[in-house]
Amino acid sequence: MAVDPTRALVIGVDFGTLSGRALVVRVEDGTELGSAVHAYTHGVVDERLPTTGARLPPDWALQVPSDYIDVLRIAVPEAIKAAGVDPSDVIGVATDFTACTMVPTTDDGTPLCELPHFASRPHAYVKLWKHHAAQGQADRINDLAAKRGESWLPRYGGFISSEWEFAKGLEVLEEDPEVYAAMMHWVEAADWIVWQLTGTYTRNACTAGYKAIRQDGRYPSPEFLAELNPDFADFVTGKVDWPIIDLGDRAGNLSARAAEWTRLPEGIAVAAGNVDAHVTNPAGQAIEPGQMVAIMGTSTCHTMNSDQLHEVPGMCGVVDGGITKGLWGYEAGQSGVGDIFGWFVHNSVPEGYAAEARSRGIGLHELLTAKAAAQQVGEHGLLALDWHSGNRSILVDHELSGMIVGQTLATKPEDIYRALIEATAFGARTVVEAFNHAGVPVREFVVAGGLIKNAFLMQIYADVLNMPLSVVSSEQAPALGSAIHAAVAAGAYSDVEAASAVMGRAEKNVYRPIKENVAAYDELFEEYRALHDYFGRGENKVMHHLRDVRRRAHGSE
Amino acid sequence: MAVDPTRALVIGVDFGTLSGRALVVRVEDGTELGSAVHAYTHGVVDERLPTTGARLPPDWALQVPSDYIDVLRIAVPEAIKAAGVDPSDVIGVATDFTACTMVPTTDDGTPLCELPHFASRPHAYVKLWKHHAAQGQADRINDLAAKRGESWLPRYGGFISSEWEFAKGLEVLEEDPEVYAAMMHWVEAADWIVWQLTGTYTRNACTAGYKAIRQDGRYPSPEFLAELNPDFADFVTGKVDWPIIDLGDRAGNLSARAAEWTRLPEGIAVAAGNVDAHVTNPAGQAIEPGQMVAIMGTSTCHTMNSDQLHEVPGMCGVVDGGITKGLWGYEAGQSGVGDIFGWFVHNSVPEGYAAEARSRGIGLHELLTAKAAAQQVGEHGLLALDWHSGNRSILVDHELSGMIVGQTLATKPEDIYRALIEATAFGARTVVEAFNHAGVPVREFVVAGGLIKNAFLMQIYADVLNMPLSVVSSEQAPALGSAIHAAVAAGAYSDVEAASAVMGRAEKNVYRPIKENVAAYDELFEEYRALHDYFGRGENKVMHHLRDVRRRAHGSE
Repeated sequence: MAVDPTRALVIGVDFGTLSGRALVVRVEDGTELGSAVHAYTHGVVDERLPTTGARLPPDWALQVPSDYIDVLRIAVPEAIKAAGVDPSDVIGVATDFTACTMVPTTDDGTPLCELPHFASRPHAYVKLWKHHAAQGQADRINDLAAKRGESWLPRYGGFISSEWEFAKGLEVLEEDPEVYAAMMHWVEAADWIVWQLTGTYTRNACTAGYKAIRQDGRYPSPEFLAELNPDFADFVTGKVDWPIIDLGDRAGNLSARAAEWTRLPEGIAVAAGNVDAHVTNPAGQAIEPGQMVAIMGTSTCHTMNSDQLHEVPGMCGVVDGGITKGLWGYEAGQSGVGDIFGWFVHNSVPEGYAAEARSRGIGLHELLTAKAAAQQVGEHGLLALDWHSGNRSILVDHELSGMIVGQTLATKPEDIYRALIEATAFGARTVVEAFNHAGVPVREFVVAGGLIKNAFLMQIYADVLNMPLSVVSSEQAPALGSAIHAAVAAGAYSDVEAASAVMGRAEKNVYRPIKENVAAYDELFEEYRALHDYFGRGENKVMHHLRDVRRRAHGSE
Repeated sequence: MAVDPTRALVIGVDFGTLSGRALVVRVEDGTELGSAVHAYTHGVVDERLPTTGARLPPDWALQVPSDYIDVLRIAVPEAIKAAGVDPSDVIGVATDFTACTMVPTTDDGTPLCELPHFASRPHAYVKLWKHHAAQGQADRINDLAAKRGESWLPRYGGFISSEWEFAKGLEVLEEDPEVYAAMMHWVEAADWIVWQLTGTYTRNACTAGYKAIRQDGRYPSPEFLAELNPDFADFVTGKVDWPIIDLGDRAGNLSARAAEWTRLPEGIAVAAGNVDAHVTNPAGQAIEPGQMVAIMGTSTCHTMNSDQLHEVPGMCGVVDGGITKGLWGYEAGQSGVGDIFGWFVHNSVPEGYAAEARSRGIGLHELLTAKAAAQQVGEHGLLALDWHSGNRSILVDHELSGMIVGQTLATKPEDIYRALIEATAFGARTVVEAFNHAGVPVREFVVAGGLIKNAFLMQIYADVLNMPLSVVSSEQAPALGSAIHAAVAAGAYSDVEAASAVMGRAEKNVYRPIKENVAAYDELFEEYRALHDYFGRGENKVMHHLRDVRRRAHGSE
């Protein structure tokens, strides 16, 4: 290294749903020196195509790839400036991305939407993770895989998501065959951004495993694909397959073009592509087997390493090297967490509370939290199911919905608010128990994300889980996680474990279970489990039936 | 009759929970000529005793009997004045009362609380119907009756209420034996007010049957009572038993003292005591077998005549002559209806809706109704159980509570409001079906009470029940029902049937079922029934468990 090791810097760039954030980190000790955010000019394209103004169908969500380049051009130099450092001290760059977010490209990586004759074609754009219009394709993939007994299906808890590479790819084929034919590569945005930085296409093991059904070195067979659609038979060989590199590997060197965008030294290390949730484990020093990281925001994503391969019912997936090289990376998730609290505050809190919050100079979340925090466990007499946004793990059923029981004429808004928080904690416990029972024990629960600011909520999680909570203390944990990978790719550390130990930051056991609350919640959790199974496992299908009735009623308007 | 039949008047006086209302009615055609209301000075005494300021325990609800006399002294003359009539044309008076509301008296009917040495003793006061502190006594009565296989128990759907004469009487014995010893009569307020009007104590067949366990001319045996408490053995013979008169009978003549209070002619007819719900049937011309009257307010009371005696599971009671002489009178009830909607509006409607209601110059109930009325059946995707106040019929379980299922992040306040209305309609259908299945078919559904103003709600009931709804069109139906009894007691009509036919007022088939809605609700009702049985019949006891947990949590504060 030409750079003095004590001055060496790395940059982590976290590409989120609405913006990208660059963070400058000191390699020697992980100190965060400065950061900058750039919001995507086009945001999420879910109403009208920017070029033509054409209206998009429901459930579509696209992005414009040049917005990502803008993050490199704007946020990276601004972060350097904010840090007050010399860019020549930067020895590596790494990125993390939302996933599964897919870019259809030419042979040289040019997004098809940037070709003039495809600029008006919706399927030529980036399909964001939350593009949900390929559910029909996903259903067919799942039905066929179950029928054929495909060995990879249990690695995904039994279900492939409509968000993932195959469902979205089949959707392109069947809805715009010309775009499909022109598409030389079907590229994860996580890999596309690395291609832009290095000039070389590489495919990372994480997204290939979780989103592209790559297991034991293989993808779904041509026979399987042909049975879905004869023209889909060469999808893997023609559009997807490409040499795999591991997380933390050096994908290549910063190209002259990317050096110009970022004002960083040409030739420095660029790490393999990665995913926002999965980079958080190293950021929180949570990469040992059994350290489960919960990234808690509008939804919660759970990521955990293990040295054991087991089939955990209802997990999102298990991937060899999916979090760090050499271990099995597990992922699970709760579809709705913070967005349930947001929905409640927006729709169910009366005027008097709004006035009280204003007079106290706090928000409604803070007001409800303060009122709810004054209660004993069980005092509100309520129990809820946290499925307002469906259930990702462990039931994998997006037709489920919310439920609350125990209301009386004395029930107050803060009672329901607290019951909803508790329901999400019970949901988290259900995930943890599924891992424990499947032989992949959860030994530590490490929290990150926007909800960690609510200490009352955190204590409930500690009490419900009967585990102390460790907190990822960086406020930009994914970007820090990427910076750790940049340091490894640059050779400053031997591996992600070593870099994480020095550069990561976690506070251990910030919230400890309170014995009496644990006992009280154990009792309530048994009731939650009974309702979970009754409504969620088919004994009473009322939630599905109500969805059907609702769709029919909307249709008859 | 000395009075010209075309000018003859009667007065009905309706004693409610918070006030009494007098109504002047023309005998010839039932025309309502004028009315007046007087609010009880002491209202419901549920916090402190008025004489001493002593704090009352939870679940207590007392009244002060002189407040009832004030209604006779103030509201009756004011109603005459409002009607602009000559009081000398009044030929009869009748009253109806809340029940079971009990007055402990001396031999001459003086309430014990009016004796100076008992004025500081809570048990010497009137125990209002909603005094709920005798649940322990009621539980013992029910357990013992079930153990002994008492034949009267099924006449009450299997359960005696804590509100009724025996539970409240046993409570007096066990908590204040001196008051119990001094109490020469344990008098229904419905009969006490008649005693005050006539100077003679009579006991009406309605309250004796529904509230005092009088069946086939007998009360519970001394052996049964002694097994509850040896000192209770002579409760019936010593405090309760008294000659019975039928509804519509002349209890006596207006005494000189009562003539002075009311400014009515001394000696005119006074009818047997009666109950507010049960007088509504004649007011609504709904006394034929199978005409079910639903008095819909904060709760709903169902009353219906039949020529058949059957045991309807979960009814409140069946009494020979309980509504009109010669037929079996059935009663059932829904503990919470309008108060559930009130609770929701008070606790769960956001600020923006309150602002919208103000800007449109309407109330929140009207705003939510307008929004909900724009929906198709099932469009909200929700299903609720209407047990926020427990379940009176058909489960007879006040430890049950509310439940709602189907919430998503798109669920709006009007969706929940509509689902709650529908839940109460499903609850009403459950009552109707219990009667139908027990061999006491409901042939017409006749509605009265405050909720009949909401046409949207009424249409939902018609659609859910798949029956046209008739409406009791008097705005003061109970007082009109009493006036009908006054006319019969005065001899102007041969019986209540004849008087009701002329003086009652009902509009037939005001709301007719809409075929498509009926089919849609049939489907949802099957789901309601499944949840009703699951949560209500012991398969899942979570509601009881949550109540227990809640009580423990409150206790541990």
